[in-house]
Amino acid sequence: MTNLINDIFLKALLKQPIDRTPIWMMRQAGRYLPEYRQIREQAGSFLNLCTNPELACEVTLQPLARFDFDAAILFSDILTIPDAMGLGLYFVEGEGPKFKHPIKTVADIKALPIPDPEIELKYVTDAVRLIRKNLQGRVPLIGFAGSPWTLATYMVEGGSSKTFQKTKALMYNEPKLMHQMLDKLAQSVASYLNAQIAAGAQAVMLFDTWGGILATEEYKQFSLAYAQQVRSLLNTDIDGTKVPTIFFTKGGGQWLESISNVGFDAVGLDWQTDIAIARERVGNKVALQGNLDPIALYAQPDIIVEKVKTILAKYGYGSGHVFNLGHGILPDVNPEHVKAMVGAVHKYSAQYHLT
Amino acid sequence: MTNLINDIFLKALLKQPIDRTPIWMMRQAGRYLPEYRQIREQAGSFLNLCTNPELACEVTLQPLARFDFDAAILFSDILTIPDAMGLGLYFVEGEGPKFKHPIKTVADIKALPIPDPEIELKYVTDAVRLIRKNLQGRVPLIGFAGSPWTLATYMVEGGSSKTFQKTKALMYNEPKLMHQMLDKLAQSVASYLNAQIAAGAQAVMLFDTWGGILATEEYKQFSLAYAQQVRSLLNTDIDGTKVPTIFFTKGGGQWLESISNVGFDAVGLDWQTDIAIARERVGNKVALQGNLDPIALYAQPDIIVEKVKTILAKYGYGSGHVFNLGHGILPDVNPEHVKAMVGAVHKYSAQYHLT
Repeated sequence: MTNLINDIFLKALLKQPIDRTPIWMMRQAGRYLPEYRQIREQAGSFLNLCTNPELACEVTLQPLARFDFDAAILFSDILTIPDAMGLGLYFVEGEGPKFKHPIKTVADIKALPIPDPEIELKYVTDAVRLIRKNLQGRVPLIGFAGSPWTLATYMVEGGSSKTFQKTKALMYNEPKLMHQMLDKLAQSVASYLNAQIAAGAQAVMLFDTWGGILATEEYKQFSLAYAQQVRSLLNTDIDGTKVPTIFFTKGGGQWLESISNVGFDAVGLDWQTDIAIARERVGNKVALQGNLDPIALYAQPDIIVEKVKTILAKYGYGSGHVFNLGHGILPDVNPEHVKAMVGAVHKYSAQYHLT
Repeated sequence: MTNLINDIFLKALLKQPIDRTPIWMMRQAGRYLPEYRQIREQAGSFLNLCTNPELACEVTLQPLARFDFDAAILFSDILTIPDAMGLGLYFVEGEGPKFKHPIKTVADIKALPIPDPEIELKYVTDAVRLIRKNLQGRVPLIGFAGSPWTLATYMVEGGSSKTFQKTKALMYNEPKLMHQMLDKLAQSVASYLNAQIAAGAQAVMLFDTWGGILATEEYKQFSLAYAQQVRSLLNTDIDGTKVPTIFFTKGGGQWLESISNVGFDAVGLDWQTDIAIARERVGNKVALQGNLDPIALYAQPDIIVEKVKTILAKYGYGSGHVFNLGHGILPDVNPEHVKAMVGAVHKYSAQYHLT
């Protein structure tokens, strides 16, 4: 590994021996931290924060000053790609992301460009370079992107959705068109992740937030196939150092066998999935990342510690487990509760790594 | 069976030989039907409709006049029980159900009564009696209730929720209190379903809409255990005629082996679960109900027909399949698309029942 002071996160993803289980947390740089809320207010908007490399760097590093996390994750948003494609991302307070120009016609799909990440998304790769510099090798930096399917849902719906009616109607009625859009997205996502890797991301994660809304056949054809395409296009060998890859489909617990077969080093688990059963099902093919219920962080610290111990015990002996939540932390969690979780992983995981 | 003209729905639930696959649809009496919207407007509110046996009967029968469904389902709401417990159910247009007096304290839980269904919920059993009379044996009538866990989530949150933060905080921090509440709910639900059966319901379904938000252990302890308690308290033998039982956990696909072991005759499947794999996993223990993606009804009729054929083929030969959606139909679906689905089940299912 590249002169990292702490590389147990990367080693766990590659199932190499380590002396305790690493931990990081989805949305670890976020609103539950008062120091984040302060910078967010100064920035004026979430998008200003994402597009300003100095501020993105600052908030990326904030959780590492508080907690002994074993990885940093680039502060950004999965919707930077559709924005770079010209859809016009904006946020409405309390309503989530929106697009000014959602995909409505065949012409819209045909006209979608594949962004050049070092041009339209240079603010992201600049942030990666700056974060790497400021991390000074303390822990590895994770780059990320949304999966093609997940990006497509936002692009067609024009924002968040409960039912994904427009996206699914397009998929069912015009599968070829949907495949064309997903192919462009897969190329864009791969190019974007490769740019993050070239800029210094030491691991990359693909977030398939909405794959779990699909029926099994459609999941394989419209979500997993394009995650596989992204994976096949990634440059994960940087001067002989491997860049581990993680794929996470929220709600994908039923499909773990298929998910573990498309070439990623690790698979993210939501909290509904039992990690002991998951490990049996995926065998030695992949490492597993997860999977405490994010809402368990509202429990009292002693209960959080018990829940952490249960998950560690369920995964059991050996490398290949990265502790995380099963989804992002919520904005009003008490940071002291996060501290309890991190402390418990440090304290109780070494016993599973005795060599 | 009790002099029914069409009893294939009940026979399918009991895995007895039939000549085609039965079909009904979750929320088949609902807003997608113009004739429903008309009565709903006359009634003034959704609750007025639920609490008026004549109107509830009328809308229950509406879909049967349009489509060849093989069962009627009582028009009602899962939240009638907490309302009967004194929580004060009301609906805010566009926001869903709310309670005036949500559960907030230990005293609130201890004070919860177990309603007498023939007193506080007599409007429901009256509706059941009236619907049975008006059905004249055409198809069986399904009674239903919300599962204890699902009811508890609404009672603690005070309505719908995205994160179920209050309910889960109570569960994690005060598991004994949560168990006390769930035990009262299980008794209330069983008594309510027994009253529906006594009034004439010929099958009953327990809806666990929110079991799928739980981690595996919590699902078993806080949701499935109380579904099992309800099941154990049901009187399902009415003068020698069996009343089949169905349990449906939305998002429960990973737990089918456990779900099929608690005594229900049939298990509902959401659309994410592959019904071929589900049948393999549950073996001969239960019948299966489902599982077309409700959003597939936005596709063109010829595509709907193909999706129906796929599901029928996936279930394969023999009795034990009740065709349904994987969740309720949405309000703006074109009724002609429902007709395409029903017609396809009638046309293409007989081949799987050759004897």
